[in-house]
Amino acid sequence: MSQNNSTPLPLKGIRVLDLTRVVSGPFCSMILGDLGAEIIKIESPGIGDPVRKQGEIKNGLSWYFASFNRNKKSVSLNLRSSEGRNIFSKLIAYCDVIVDNFRPGVLDDMGFSDKTLKSLNSKIIRGSITGFGTTGPYQDRPAFDFIAQAITGFMSLNGSSNGPPQRVGPPISDLVAGLYAALGVVSAIAHRERTGRCISTTVSLTGALTSMLGFHAANFLATDKLPSRTGNAHGIVAPYGIFRTKDSEIAIAPGNDEIYGRLLTALDANTLSERPEFKTNKLRLQNRDLICAEVESRTKKQTTAYWVKVLNDAGVPCGPVNNLRESLIEDPQNADQNAVIKVEHEGHGAVSMLGPPLQFDNSPLRVSLPAPKLGEHTEEILERIGMNKNDIDRLKSMGAI
Amino acid sequence: MSQNNSTPLPLKGIRVLDLTRVVSGPFCSMILGDLGAEIIKIESPGIGDPVRKQGEIKNGLSWYFASFNRNKKSVSLNLRSSEGRNIFSKLIAYCDVIVDNFRPGVLDDMGFSDKTLKSLNSKIIRGSITGFGTTGPYQDRPAFDFIAQAITGFMSLNGSSNGPPQRVGPPISDLVAGLYAALGVVSAIAHRERTGRCISTTVSLTGALTSMLGFHAANFLATDKLPSRTGNAHGIVAPYGIFRTKDSEIAIAPGNDEIYGRLLTALDANTLSERPEFKTNKLRLQNRDLICAEVESRTKKQTTAYWVKVLNDAGVPCGPVNNLRESLIEDPQNADQNAVIKVEHEGHGAVSMLGPPLQFDNSPLRVSLPAPKLGEHTEEILERIGMNKNDIDRLKSMGAI
Repeated sequence: MSQNNSTPLPLKGIRVLDLTRVVSGPFCSMILGDLGAEIIKIESPGIGDPVRKQGEIKNGLSWYFASFNRNKKSVSLNLRSSEGRNIFSKLIAYCDVIVDNFRPGVLDDMGFSDKTLKSLNSKIIRGSITGFGTTGPYQDRPAFDFIAQAITGFMSLNGSSNGPPQRVGPPISDLVAGLYAALGVVSAIAHRERTGRCISTTVSLTGALTSMLGFHAANFLATDKLPSRTGNAHGIVAPYGIFRTKDSEIAIAPGNDEIYGRLLTALDANTLSERPEFKTNKLRLQNRDLICAEVESRTKKQTTAYWVKVLNDAGVPCGPVNNLRESLIEDPQNADQNAVIKVEHEGHGAVSMLGPPLQFDNSPLRVSLPAPKLGEHTEEILERIGMNKNDIDRLKSMGAI
Repeated sequence: MSQNNSTPLPLKGIRVLDLTRVVSGPFCSMILGDLGAEIIKIESPGIGDPVRKQGEIKNGLSWYFASFNRNKKSVSLNLRSSEGRNIFSKLIAYCDVIVDNFRPGVLDDMGFSDKTLKSLNSKIIRGSITGFGTTGPYQDRPAFDFIAQAITGFMSLNGSSNGPPQRVGPPISDLVAGLYAALGVVSAIAHRERTGRCISTTVSLTGALTSMLGFHAANFLATDKLPSRTGNAHGIVAPYGIFRTKDSEIAIAPGNDEIYGRLLTALDANTLSERPEFKTNKLRLQNRDLICAEVESRTKKQTTAYWVKVLNDAGVPCGPVNNLRESLIEDPQNADQNAVIKVEHEGHGAVSMLGPPLQFDNSPLRVSLPAPKLGEHTEEILERIGMNKNDIDRLKSMGAI
């Protein structure tokens, strides 16, 4: 970890009661923790977040769990016991924020409606993530990233022109919803600081992913014409895409005529600019295969590394098509940016994980706590809300913690 | 617009000086505007944001520009003239936040280093978005979403097992970076309110997208084994994916054994649970084609609408594979959630656009200003920083505004 320890952590002093599990909610609370908030993760005694058992387990630890749950403390608490709910009430009074990714109504059914939350702590901010929203005909449906990708139309934009709609590999709706939820919570904190007023915030997987439809949605809404899938080509620019080189491939994105001109010069292909069939972008789109073949006949003569240097120097956006090793392990820019960090986990060794992408005062955010063992901080937190060793022993023996 | 006008806007009273253009930065400032900040968009006189001329133009207006620039005011200002820079200095003093998506160093070269910004306004918060970061070997490279998708390894996770890496259609790195930048700015605002201290924040397209590699990155870092592309199937769960129905297709995601059991019951296929080759998820993965064919032989007997109801009622995550019309126009949940809103633009009619996905106190954020005409608010804002009509006329005649 090369981070500067004097970097200010913007949410220092904020306490978050974290009921989230699996992906979307934990990503939200991870971000809040990266920003400096104290995250108190509530887990069922002996069971915990199901992700503890998912993904690759190395030295007895799920690296997936470790990476999504850094900067968090774990308190084991049985919310089905009256003692557990009693402690939970005290934690609500102790915290600034409560976050959950239950289905709508689940927290209410546990006895913690928004009204009860307010009565326990008039300053509490609630952030929640649902699958489809807290109202509407689908509010009770079970949610899953794959379904969100299918139902929002996001999948319909991905894939080649002659193939089916394609899912994207990462659970993008979970992650984007988690990021929005973090934004909602921090916005509510800023609002509380400025006005004294507390507001709750919510976002859905489908709502979050829908907002990523971007210009495709704008163009569709303007024309009522469905966009076609274009694979790795651009809808309205040519040449553009992936081109073979002497040793592998290169992605080239000359987004406008000026950059196209620079590309021709860098490829030593200025004669192409005089060919009538390539005179304008419109003509090049009509002759897409032809112009792309002309480009590729040149890129094939040198290596990817050669073209990455030459084209970038010429101001043409380009880059290799990396796999995760080439990106996360071998790329010097990612090394400079701390894209991957190592966090020591007692008893499990160092875990490599993605670092926080946000920087403040030009320093990346840092990880000060490894992912917690289940219930690791139960005593610490319970003592802070006024319990003593005897209370804690009693609660343990009852199975409440 | 059916939004509740009493919804509190969390960033009310915050003023943002917005130098962003194209996609990523304008998405950031759009989000800040949706959250209630006043966005003062600086544009070159007579030219403006290039997106004004991009995408589908309807009734003389780019709907792409309209959707990404709602809730903003436009001030035309020539930052290459000394008068323009003088006004800009006054605007820095007048605002809380300055956001840009220039390449690193461009704002410095214009005479506005971080130090100068601070000297003009000790309370200013700077938020910036770059392609690759503000340091490191790629800091000066031109950036583009397609390149970010290629170089980060994001593309390597998308596509079918026997096909090439696939780009996702929407400019996902631009949008996720814009969302992170908004989070960074709001975090800095909360920090300023809590401590009086001002910090700057920055994020890159590649850093933002890298953070979306999620569990794929965790599993790769744990094992050094590159993930294989799985198309629309799940890497470690079967059955799962897209299945044909009587009239179209359905996405089904039975994420664990319990939900698999519910799926079999809902399909009236409980006999499958006794087949030795389908006993465990591990066996079903080995016989993926076989179990998927068994599922599809049943889904094909009824319509998608039938199965969406029956499977959701049984607690099995599923949904249709929608195109943008089916999602944005016809889906009743999206209607309930205000996924698409209409905003009146004087002289151009009503523009349909994606609504903000975040809700506060159970109400969606609202759009109170349509996208501005170029320079529409120049006089309003200049008068607020102390200029009179004569000053403004003089600046106009000089081409400074």
